[in-house]
Parts: sequence; structure tokens; C-alpha cells
Amino acid sequence: MKQLAVGIDIGGTNSVYGLVDREGNMYGEGVVPTKNYPDFDQYLEELYIGIQNLVKNLDGEYEIIGIGIGAPNANYYNGTIEYAANLIWQGVIPFVEKMKRYYPTIPVLITNDANAAAIGEMVYGAAKGMKDFIVVTLGTGLGSGFVANGQLIYGHDSFAGELGHVIVNKTASARVCGCGRKGCLETYVSATGIKRTAFKLLADHIEDSEFRNYSFNELTAEMITKAALNGDRLAIEAYEYTGMILGQALADAVTITSPEAIFLFGGLAKAGKYIFEPTKKYMEMHMLSNFRNKVKLLPSGIDGKNAAVLGASALIWQQLEGSK
Amino acid sequence: MKQLAVGIDIGGTNSVYGLVDREGNMYGEGVVPTKNYPDFDQYLEELYIGIQNLVKNLDGEYEIIGIGIGAPNANYYNGTIEYAANLIWQGVIPFVEKMKRYYPTIPVLITNDANAAAIGEMVYGAAKGMKDFIVVTLGTGLGSGFVANGQLIYGHDSFAGELGHVIVNKTASARVCGCGRKGCLETYVSATGIKRTAFKLLADHIEDSEFRNYSFNELTAEMITKAALNGDRLAIEAYEYTGMILGQALADAVTITSPEAIFLFGGLAKAGKYIFEPTKKYMEMHMLSNFRNKVKLLPSGIDGKNAAVLGASALIWQQLEGSK
Repeated sequence: MKQLAVGIDIGGTNSVYGLVDREGNMYGEGVVPTKNYPDFDQYLEELYIGIQNLVKNLDGEYEIIGIGIGAPNANYYNGTIEYAANLIWQGVIPFVEKMKRYYPTIPVLITNDANAAAIGEMVYGAAKGMKDFIVVTLGTGLGSGFVANGQLIYGHDSFAGELGHVIVNKTASARVCGCGRKGCLETYVSATGIKRTAFKLLADHIEDSEFRNYSFNELTAEMITKAALNGDRLAIEAYEYTGMILGQALADAVTITSPEAIFLFGGLAKAGKYIFEPTKKYMEMHMLSNFRNKVKLLPSGIDGKNAAVLGASALIWQQLEGSK
Repeated sequence: MKQLAVGIDIGGTNSVYGLVDREGNMYGEGVVPTKNYPDFDQYLEELYIGIQNLVKNLDGEYEIIGIGIGAPNANYYNGTIEYAANLIWQGVIPFVEKMKRYYPTIPVLITNDANAAAIGEMVYGAAKGMKDFIVVTLGTGLGSGFVANGQLIYGHDSFAGELGHVIVNKTASARVCGCGRKGCLETYVSATGIKRTAFKLLADHIEDSEFRNYSFNELTAEMITKAALNGDRLAIEAYEYTGMILGQALADAVTITSPEAIFLFGGLAKAGKYIFEPTKKYMEMHMLSNFRNKVKLLPSGIDGKNAAVLGASALIWQQLEGSK
């Protein structure tokens, strides 16, 4: 009987779920519009019905071996989502406990999106067989998952891996961060960060640019990526600056966990050489000599449409195989 | 039959060795003057004779279960000491392989001093039962050992935990580091770092101080510690500055591994509140709110005369118990 894991990726707008085998193949997927369900119990009922429909539609003999969930502000140890500003549910949501009422006999695990991406990379992606690596997710913010000795670092309270909130600029002109502090890595290196950089460059320079026609709210990181790929000088400079800040921060992270590889995942990674080349250049330039030219900087092996669902489902394979 | 582990702490001047039980009690110790043995094989012969003499002198029935070694630039995976500038032996020394000729049937393990301190803290000290913590060793330089999921983070090449070489000052006036870069944490936070800070304060201020009578080579960190404990303003300010830089760096480290506690070990930690209070204050001030007031900042539970030998011997207990 073929084994499948359920992967659920919970976002502020939609929750996407799917059935995934050990090789990372999807066996059907579905969507629940998260924001339409302020009542968490109703949401869960809808999610359960959707998953059961996928299972019913399977052709052949299958066994569902567990449910992995990726969600913002998820606490792996407690199985909860805690004070997630981007979700419609307030306070602490006992997600795993309530999900267990529907699935009492199989493992139900939850973690944040970046940790799920790291485990997905280990189970299905380019980190297969690696024991020590870092995944950096470049979305609206900057997330990260650190793996050491073959295990994800959750830390004492399950909230480890907040590389986006390492302080990279201690000067008075450091960028203000949504966390209430100044100079955090994600204020420079993220979809929002590169928009801020583009606006800084428009302020610093006088040359013309298509970006002079857009408001901050109109401009997107995708537009900057597209412009860079088309050879736009300002967009390329914005990526160079982003890579410089990221490369320096990664050099510091390497001194702590000495990874075999660092994977860049998500939107900004799609700029290819425009982000990888400056990041690599500045990472090596700032690296302690012990580590120089040893650490691979790689694109994710699972990045794509289903990456978040795959990452969530990977939690289950990782747990089953880790406990052997 | 009582079990004992051998602990060996290799320094540039002396190598200290001893027999240690599971509770951290010492059963005799000895010294080999490292610097007198440029021939490594002769050194090892002398060390072996010394250890065997300790064993012979034991009263009662004992079993030696393994040999743990702490040494600068030790590679845990390869069992080697690699290009240690402070030791008399050049290049790569296959320490474990050669030690195994004397002790072919028991585990022989080597790691660097800071990692040994971290494992010692876990096995005998104040980190007993903790799964996630950091030990910061404040000696001539700044070393660190990171433990996550109950395991030391060695990283891909065994050289993880170089917190002393995280860049904490990116400005043009950052301090030059022995590693060839500028602004490393250990140029501020270490025995040498606080001397540099004292000299900076003598340059910045005009008030009188006993330190105005000493050359840089005469001044020691111990003198600054003693002066701080006696209420000397400049010495206290030097510690305040040291704690500020350390506290900020620890806040960043916490975002990565989310430890339950951080232990300060070694010389500067002996300044008590003069180092702990500013470090704690600035750590909390710069902490991401998730982690604020959650992470304990503690003195080491094994710091003292035999700490390095205990730490080295702890490698053996950790390995035996970890493999259960």
C-alpha cells in the first residue's frame, strides 16, 4: 500500500493542501480561503472535508501516514499558531490538538514556513543527504531554517531561525523594521526590502528609470526582478545592494553553524545571477578564512508552485525517518 | 568497577591531563610541557606514560572508558589538530590516530577548547538537562560552543561556533583582528579586547587612572577586572562597553538558535556583575521581542582550575550516552 503524507500551507488569504508521496509527487490538491473563516472550527471542518475528498478520489490503495502543516508563527513544540498578525484568528490557536480530533491515530505536526522549506529541501530537494545547511526564504519578509547534525534547530521555544531579524545596520540611518527595531536584515533583503532599496536608489541618483513612474504601493519585487533580467541598471544595482547585505549576513551565519550549503528560496531567488552573484561575492569577501570557498550557495531544489505544500508534508517523512 | 574518562587539555605551554568520573570528580592529574616536545611522537609517549602512572596509582578497581582531548584548531571529524598557530607542531597532526596506537580499544575524541567547555557544561555543569544553549569562553580570544537538540553544532567541517569572528562593527574605525579582517567580536570582547577598550578610554578621556602608568604590554585583563571590583571608574566603563558589544552580539545569536541559556566562561566572567549586568541589559535592549526576557545569562557551572580537563573528559561521557 503506497504511503502519502498530507501537506497544508496556511497563508493569510488561502490555505493550500495536497497529498504527497515520499518522492515529492503530488496526488491532488485543494484550497480553503483562510480569510473567509474567522471561526477556526468551521475552517478546520472545511479543511477536513477537502482532504477527505482528495483521499476518496485516489485511484488504488493508499495509506495517509500523517499531516504536516506550515503556518506563520507556528510553535512546533506546542502544536499551536501564536499571535499570527497575518491570519484572521487571534491569540493562540491549538491547531494540532484540534486537528487530532479528526485524525487521532496519525502524527500531526506544525512548523513555520521557513522551517518547512528547510525540511522539504532535506526530504525532497537539493539538501538530500546533507546534515548541515541553511535555507533562506525570500518572501515579503526573510525567513530561515537552520539544520545541524541532520536536525532542524527549533531552539528552546521553537522560534529559532529568525535570521531576518539579525541586526545588519547599527547606524542612525538604519531602516525601521516591522518588529519595532531598526536595521534588521529583512528590511534590506526581502521583497519589501528590495523595493525600499529601489526607492533609495531613485532618491540617490538622477538618471531616468521606469521606476520613477510608480508609487511605492504600485512597485513590486517582481517588477524589479523583471527589469533586472531585462538589463535595467537601477534594478541590477538594487539586486547588487541586496546581495551585498545578504552576503555579509551569511558570512556571519556561517561562522556560527558552518553549513555545507546555503539555499536561497522564494521570489528574489528568481533573479538568478543578479542575486546569486553579488551574494556569493560579498559572502566570500567577508568570510573568515577557515570557511572561504567552502560553502555552496545554491537555488532551492523544490522551489515552485507546490513548494510550500511539499515542505509541510516533508515534516512527516522527516519525523518518521528520524525516529527510526 | 568504577568508570573513569581521561581528559587532556592541550595548551601552547602545557598539556594538563586527569582522570574524571561521571560526576566530574578528578582522580589525579599531571602535566606535560607541550612546548618542550617539538617531536610529536615523543610528546605522545610522555603523555601516555603520565596517564598510565595516574592509572597505576589508583586505589581500587577502575576502568578507563575513553580519552577526550581539548585543543586549539582541533577537527572533531578527522581527529586532527590543524595549523594551530599557538602550538609547537606545524601543519596537520593526526592526534587521534596516533593516540589510538596506545589505546586501540577505547574511544579517543578531540575537539576545540570552547566546544569542550560546552560539552563539559552539559555533562557536569549548569547546562545539565538543557537541549539548547550557548557557552561563550572569554579568554585571550572569544570562543563559543552552540548546542541545539542536545547536540553540539560542529557544522560541515567541524569548525562551527566561531562567534568571536562575527563582525560587530562595519565602520571604517572598526578594530583590526588577528584573522586579517576588521570588526570581529573578539577584538572587543576578550582579554585582549578589554585591554584595547581600556586604552581607547584612556585616549578619549582626560581623568586620571592607575592605568595611565602601564604600557599595553604590561596591562592585563586581570588588572582591569581587579580595578573594576575595587570600584575604578575607567575599569567599570571598560566592562560596560564590553558588555554592550557582547549583549548586542548575543541578541543576534539568539535569533538564530533560540537557546534556553547562555553561559559566560573564563577570565572576563570573573568580573561578575560588571560583565553580566551590562551584557544582560544590552542583550535584552536589542532582542527581538519574541525572545525578550526568556534567555538566561549565567556563569559557567564548571569554571575553575580543572574546567578545561573536565570539559575534555566530558566528550567521552557525552558520546557514550548520546549513542544509547
